[in-house]
Amino acid sequence: MKKIRVGVAGYGTIGQRLADGVAMQEDMELVGVADVVPGLSIQALFENDMIGVNGIKYDLYLAQGADRAEFEKRNIPIAGTFEELVQKVDVMLDSAPAGVGAKNKEIYEKYGVKAIFQGGEKNSVADVFFHGYANYEQGVNKNFLKLTSCNTTGLIRTVDCLDRAFGIEKVAITIIRRVADPGDYHRGLTNALQIDKAPSHQAVDLMTIMPHVEATGILVHTPVTHGHIITVVAKGKTKITKEMALQEFQKYPRIRVVSIADGFKGNASLFKYARDLGNRRGDMYEIGLWEESIVETGDDIMYAINIPQESVTIPETIDAIRAATGIQLTREEGTAATNKYLGIGKFKNHR
Amino acid sequence: MKKIRVGVAGYGTIGQRLADGVAMQEDMELVGVADVVPGLSIQALFENDMIGVNGIKYDLYLAQGADRAEFEKRNIPIAGTFEELVQKVDVMLDSAPAGVGAKNKEIYEKYGVKAIFQGGEKNSVADVFFHGYANYEQGVNKNFLKLTSCNTTGLIRTVDCLDRAFGIEKVAITIIRRVADPGDYHRGLTNALQIDKAPSHQAVDLMTIMPHVEATGILVHTPVTHGHIITVVAKGKTKITKEMALQEFQKYPRIRVVSIADGFKGNASLFKYARDLGNRRGDMYEIGLWEESIVETGDDIMYAINIPQESVTIPETIDAIRAATGIQLTREEGTAATNKYLGIGKFKNHR
Amino acid sequence: MKKIRVGVAGYGTIGQRLADGVAMQEDMELVGVADVVPGLSIQALFENDMIGVNGIKYDLYLAQGADRAEFEKRNIPIAGTFEELVQKVDVMLDSAPAGVGAKNKEIYEKYGVKAIFQGGEKNSVADVFFHGYANYEQGVNKNFLKLTSCNTTGLIRTVDCLDRAFGIEKVAITIIRRVADPGDYHRGLTNALQIDKAPSHQAVDLMTIMPHVEATGILVHTPVTHGHIITVVAKGKTKITKEMALQEFQKYPRIRVVSIADGFKGNASLFKYARDLGNRRGDMYEIGLWEESIVETGDDIMYAINIPQESVTIPETIDAIRAATGIQLTREEGTAATNKYLGIGKFKNHR
Amino acid sequence: MKKIRVGVAGYGTIGQRLADGVAMQEDMELVGVADVVPGLSIQALFENDMIGVNGIKYDLYLAQGADRAEFEKRNIPIAGTFEELVQKVDVMLDSAPAGVGAKNKEIYEKYGVKAIFQGGEKNSVADVFFHGYANYEQGVNKNFLKLTSCNTTGLIRTVDCLDRAFGIEKVAITIIRRVADPGDYHRGLTNALQIDKAPSHQAVDLMTIMPHVEATGILVHTPVTHGHIITVVAKGKTKITKEMALQEFQKYPRIRVVSIADGFKGNASLFKYARDLGNRRGDMYEIGLWEESIVETGDDIMYAINIPQESVTIPETIDAIRAATGIQLTREEGTAATNKYLGIGKFKNHR
Repeated sequence: MKKIRVGVAGYGTIGQRLADGVAMQEDMELVGVADVVPGLSIQALFENDMIGVNGIKYDLYLAQGADRAEFEKRNIPIAGTFEELVQKVDVMLDSAPAGVGAKNKEIYEKYGVKAIFQGGEKNSVADVFFHGYANYEQGVNKNFLKLTSCNTTGLIRTVDCLDRAFGIEKVAITIIRRVADPGDYHRGLTNALQIDKAPSHQAVDLMTIMPHVEATGILVHTPVTHGHIITVVAKGKTKITKEMALQEFQKYPRIRVVSIADGFKGNASLFKYARDLGNRRGDMYEIGLWEESIVETGDDIMYAINIPQESVTIPETIDAIRAATGIQLTREEGTAATNKYLGIGKFKNHR
Repeated sequence: MKKIRVGVAGYGTIGQRLADGVAMQEDMELVGVADVVPGLSIQALFENDMIGVNGIKYDLYLAQGADRAEFEKRNIPIAGTFEELVQKVDVMLDSAPAGVGAKNKEIYEKYGVKAIFQGGEKNSVADVFFHGYANYEQGVNKNFLKLTSCNTTGLIRTVDCLDRAFGIEKVAITIIRRVADPGDYHRGLTNALQIDKAPSHQAVDLMTIMPHVEATGILVHTPVTHGHIITVVAKGKTKITKEMALQEFQKYPRIRVVSIADGFKGNASLFKYARDLGNRRGDMYEIGLWEESIVETGDDIMYAINIPQESVTIPETIDAIRAATGIQLTREEGTAATNKYLGIGKFKNHR
Repeated sequence: MKKIRVGVAGYGTIGQRLADGVAMQEDMELVGVADVVPGLSIQALFENDMIGVNGIKYDLYLAQGADRAEFEKRNIPIAGTFEELVQKVDVMLDSAPAGVGAKNKEIYEKYGVKAIFQGGEKNSVADVFFHGYANYEQGVNKNFLKLTSCNTTGLIRTVDCLDRAFGIEKVAITIIRRVADPGDYHRGLTNALQIDKAPSHQAVDLMTIMPHVEATGILVHTPVTHGHIITVVAKGKTKITKEMALQEFQKYPRIRVVSIADGFKGNASLFKYARDLGNRRGDMYEIGLWEESIVETGDDIMYAINIPQESVTIPETIDAIRAATGIQLTREEGTAATNKYLGIGKFKNHR
Repeated sequence: MKKIRVGVAGYGTIGQRLADGVAMQEDMELVGVADVVPGLSIQALFENDMIGVNGIKYDLYLAQGADRAEFEKRNIPIAGTFEELVQKVDVMLDSAPAGVGAKNKEIYEKYGVKAIFQGGEKNSVADVFFHGYANYEQGVNKNFLKLTSCNTTGLIRTVDCLDRAFGIEKVAITIIRRVADPGDYHRGLTNALQIDKAPSHQAVDLMTIMPHVEATGILVHTPVTHGHIITVVAKGKTKITKEMALQEFQKYPRIRVVSIADGFKGNASLFKYARDLGNRRGDMYEIGLWEESIVETGDDIMYAINIPQESVTIPETIDAIRAATGIQLTREEGTAATNKYLGIGKFKNHR
């Protein structure tokens, strides 16, 4: 079978992880990555002789507006221009800064190449606002998909999980947002919790993806870097007990049920655990869900999840490639292929 | 009228604020404060020639187990022993470390003195678990009251507010807890969100004070010092709209409705504002409630509040003195007197 | 004696403290303050009926470019325009954002009014780069002075102290910089130490003020809000022992020698102590210097100081008014008057 | 050649990295690791089917006082007891909690096994206080070595580097210490800088290892997790210019000279870079040294370094195995072998 050829625009926090994710798919080929400046991520790639995951070479193309001299003075090899990259691929994964993706789209359209945009772009850039588990089929054979943002992606995993089992009518979420990524210096917060105007966009986005669910939410920024925590108050069509919810969560491949009693005390434990597993970059594709956080009150069920913001959207983005190209036509087949190649769902310590 | 004579056990973060609060009540007399060691708060009092709020002298007594030599070598004047203090007062406010209050109670009983304990003690230490607005009448003429903790005190203000207006059936809370006070070095958290086993004690305590409300909650510790933030999802007996809720919140003296648009971006804004007001120690007695956080979803109303943990329980503790001594027999009269002397409820910028 | 009439441009973190400082000087009159928007500090002033420190009314003028409607819709009383304020004063304290002061200067010159600029402006804006203790006499009867920045102001106090006693040849400093003020959301740092290109401007500025001292330094930003810490390695003309240094530091009114053993564990202890003293806004005019940090190595003496960034430059700015207007002609008289009115140097617990 | 058989006591933050480091040495064999409880690191190892770096199986032994039932109920395979492990090895690396190593030593002596202790133990536990580059020869064929702590290890690299080239007489250091590791919840600090009594132990330890250098220092704890920063003021026997220092630093394999201009803005950049390199756990063996931090003042040279606290002592500990067993008799040979197997010193982007 011919491999799907994929390019990545933007080799930043998300882009480099998308590149790794594609390189791990045996039915895909990473044609190259593109960026405008030789930042630390590209310097690291260069120190590794342009070799990424699994010994695969990552060819570097110059994104629109890149300064070629900056790359050349460091002797970083350049494989070509952005348009050259686009012409070699079936699908572009666009993780350029917000707004740039919309401009790149003109080039994708010029060459008839499909594209998957990350959450920073406006919904209008795409044909479908996409989540691998919640609405895979809507993305099948479409040209332009936009992924849900990191919080929404992880949140929907749990709501979709309960919804398919029991039916969900309503959710109210509190997003305790990490304010910066490790390595960020430009958007930190020091000794302050900052609140956004409600409802949070994640609640609104959830309703776009799952229109039969009513949702609202409040977002509070916190001065940490290792993963958001979201609490969810959900109301099922019928009463959902802790046991019923737990059983479903445990069957869902992209949810890792963890326990405070085991030592998973918070978001930093999940980051530490991913590092100790030897995961590349200390990343984790699954969200964490604390068993001891699940409580009932009246008809509602409440629980807390951890969102590894740097890597959580990678699986659903790979799903999007599968949907858009139509190599798998159903969510079961599409997500199963992604999970297999990313090694998702092997939890020996699963609660 | 004879003033109520009050003593304070423990001159720490809470104790010094209780002493100030009592000294501001024109119908009360601060007889003295007691502590075991000459820590920074007592060193500051000494640098001020033992003069506290409103030019009032704070006599210092040695608490049980205090090391007199430590005080004497600094020339800090000592007014007497703990038992001597207890014999001079009508009511003791006990803000000693958790567990010490239970031992102090033996002395209070020996001398027939009433006492108000802070949230760290077990409920069994007191006759009534008390909140000035929610169950004032239960504390009237009782000997031993225990205050709700800082988060519970602030939370109940809002639930009581809605409950009296509309009836509340159920609440689900997310507590985004500040992990340390300014000046703490011993219980910090660095770049981590830590989750507790659910349900949080605050939800359980709310049900003790307001048994007709069903409550649950999840608590997450965050590395900040200036005030907790709580999100509340509440279900009324009838549908509560944003406007209905807002109108009630604005009438409640111990709730300060603030706006992100005015510059109240988070918990640090409220601390800054209290400092800019010239409030002693940069304290605030009111909780903050963000107008832009109030959202509806189905039958539920959701909102976010800020809890100034160092000072929020002072008003309700003063209420407790009023209830226990019976100088005011109703919540309306008791809380009004407290509010008047503490200067609560004068919000020129109220939304 | 006629009081010196003073106005303040910019009612932000520094400006409001300058206004308070002027209001505390019995030989000065605070004519008014000016700002462009009704931010939280002005909202707090309004909630206090425009009354500031010592019951003094602070008249509010509209700074250049202010939006009058924004003030009027909140019913905040406006006393006049910026030019009107300037015409009523002898001296303007300019704490407008960096760069604005240079523009304001045109108006000061137009009306023949003297001005003191804060550290954010370029040195060229002023006739003299000024420090109350280190070069008071150079500012006497000059029209335009610029204050050293907060770190430099505090640092120079200690170097000047040792220099006058023993002669200082060389200093190497490490500035552990707090990255944001309490209440800031826009320039925080989360779980990162950030380093600046060396030498730090504070070392360069020290050499401008004290040209006979050789200085260099490295600055590292840290995610805290309550005060910078600076370590100083100083070389005297002759060997300076710990005892010699300590004795001089203890005599210097704007240095508070504190002890870890007393409970001053770090910068947060000094902030807590200032709050417990009942100081307005929890401010402190003195820098802290840890007794246990003073160590010798060969010819060098090393020590650590704490810089309360919000308030440390207030005394030296008041000194600057005294120098520029010539009401005191020597540093001894000028600083003594400032210290008296600000209540500086009364350390009952001084080590 | 027969491989050196090595065991590791304590599979915590340091222990698991020591195990990896040994597993990477082609002339060593990792016999096993021991711990008392199945914490997150061991759970991660178990999820990986007990396979560590390079596909090598890590046999798990029960440390003294371990609760076997806790391991068994998780089905974690146990290879034997601590004494059994000790009997199978030539050298034990002891990274047990401080104080436990001294007790373990009795078992090492009982079976005539050499041991390398980490920095937490008292110096008296060992024959030699060891640093791979500074005093390798003193460790040759000794039975018990103790490693310098993380800060001291990195600091000495730079002082040794300059000392061998130019001779160093005196250093004064400021340690800006990260207060917790990623994943820690028990020893954090929130919005505070905390100062220790001077001189810091690192300065004292440096003088123990390099007795011809005079040293002092001040340590300040900061609320971050990704690496300490140390500023060093050093005085050479002759004047050392920036160029002279830089040239030597660039030749030293375990120092990575980095540039702010390249994007290395602080400690979080180095952590990010190590993650982007794909280094296991996001670790780095080299210290970072900022080119732009190097400044001269008079006879002194000043510079700033970054200490990756979790991994920095691994190379020197491997050196210690080489010295103690005598497989390499000189520092040049010993450190070169360690560097080769750990992949140290390949800096394509070296400044």
